[in-house]
Amino acid sequence: MNKTSGAVVLLSGGVDSTTLLHFVKKELGVSPVHALSFLYGQKHVKELDMACEQAKLAGAETHEVIDISFMAAIIGSASVLTREGGEVPDLDQIAESDRSQPPTYVPNRNMLFLSLAASYAESRGIPDLFYGAQAQDEYGYWDCTNDFLSAINAVLALNRDLPVMVKAPFIAMRKVDVLKKGLELGIDYSRTWTCYRGDTSPCGTCPSCVERKTAFEELEE
Amino acid sequence: MNKTSGAVVLLSGGVDSTTLLHFVKKELGVSPVHALSFLYGQKHVKELDMACEQAKLAGAETHEVIDISFMAAIIGSASVLTREGGEVPDLDQIAESDRSQPPTYVPNRNMLFLSLAASYAESRGIPDLFYGAQAQDEYGYWDCTNDFLSAINAVLALNRDLPVMVKAPFIAMRKVDVLKKGLELGIDYSRTWTCYRGDTSPCGTCPSCVERKTAFEELEE
Repeated sequence: MNKTSGAVVLLSGGVDSTTLLHFVKKELGVSPVHALSFLYGQKHVKELDMACEQAKLAGAETHEVIDISFMAAIIGSASVLTREGGEVPDLDQIAESDRSQPPTYVPNRNMLFLSLAASYAESRGIPDLFYGAQAQDEYGYWDCTNDFLSAINAVLALNRDLPVMVKAPFIAMRKVDVLKKGLELGIDYSRTWTCYRGDTSPCGTCPSCVERKTAFEELEE
Repeated sequence: MNKTSGAVVLLSGGVDSTTLLHFVKKELGVSPVHALSFLYGQKHVKELDMACEQAKLAGAETHEVIDISFMAAIIGSASVLTREGGEVPDLDQIAESDRSQPPTYVPNRNMLFLSLAASYAESRGIPDLFYGAQAQDEYGYWDCTNDFLSAINAVLALNRDLPVMVKAPFIAMRKVDVLKKGLELGIDYSRTWTCYRGDTSPCGTCPSCVERKTAFEELEE
């Protein structure tokens, strides 16, 4: 496979990955940019409408939504994000001791997403894969950390032909700083989706909503 | 997720993974064993019939075939194993210089398989995942090596709740030694499938057939 230019960007339609997409395109000046989203049985599938819209707004060359909703069967009842009838708890219902691996964690989801995206990138000769992982304020998933990123890149670096590299420029940033960057880039955050619950408007109390709200409040301080 | 007993075994229906399944069940005495296979758009889908048969013969508790045939679209034309109309070359048509990443290589396939299998295992509280990687004689894929195995385990070890561990007991063995082990375990290798081509009988000349034939010949020496 011959190496080409450009990058793949993982795009969920939330604050971090939307900012990343615009950042890669406008600030880093990468071209062409290929946005990649996953339908994995998440209740908050509305995020994918926002992803489609943002891919167009950012001028992505392509945007593909990969349907891996069979994941719901693989995961079974292990995550409230995919479990039928599973109720996403409010952040304040999650005990401190559970926050390192909360019920909203989807088993090994991010390794799977990155494996698929690396396969997609490698098959097209694209060397760079951008991932919107970001230092969480309330709790951190193990598969959003810098250690995780380094370990994934250590796997991919073994590829003898085209080692894809995962880049996560926001990994050490707080959400408020991601927002600042995005506002500089002219992003309209009313066209992003964060809430874990699948309702028509954001609940305001789930862990994701609280994090988003806190970041916007900090912006005004 | 509470830790349970047992193991997941990746089962393609070929010599190595079939031997592994019987080995884990009979020699290691692991119970229950959950066999996991993937339909990924491979031409040699016949291997899955053998996988189903072997799962029953070995007394696996469950056997699931996960349909990820959408992979063919992700990979595009990058592998002859999944490309429509793509012709699998004979081993002697592959130049020495191409053998470290030959046309039968499927971009990042094994990282994807292991990510999915780890997600499956973690969701069920199963700590061990067995993988039939084995030191190839004719050429080696980067994602069948011991370095690859170590790097994958370094990713999974970061999981704070249930780190799944990938075990590949045959990784340093030659195929002939895997066969010897399997024959001791009473495996009927006529009920396994190796040929990369999708014909009704094995071609005898593709890289996989040559490797298998060589191992059987060495057995008689």
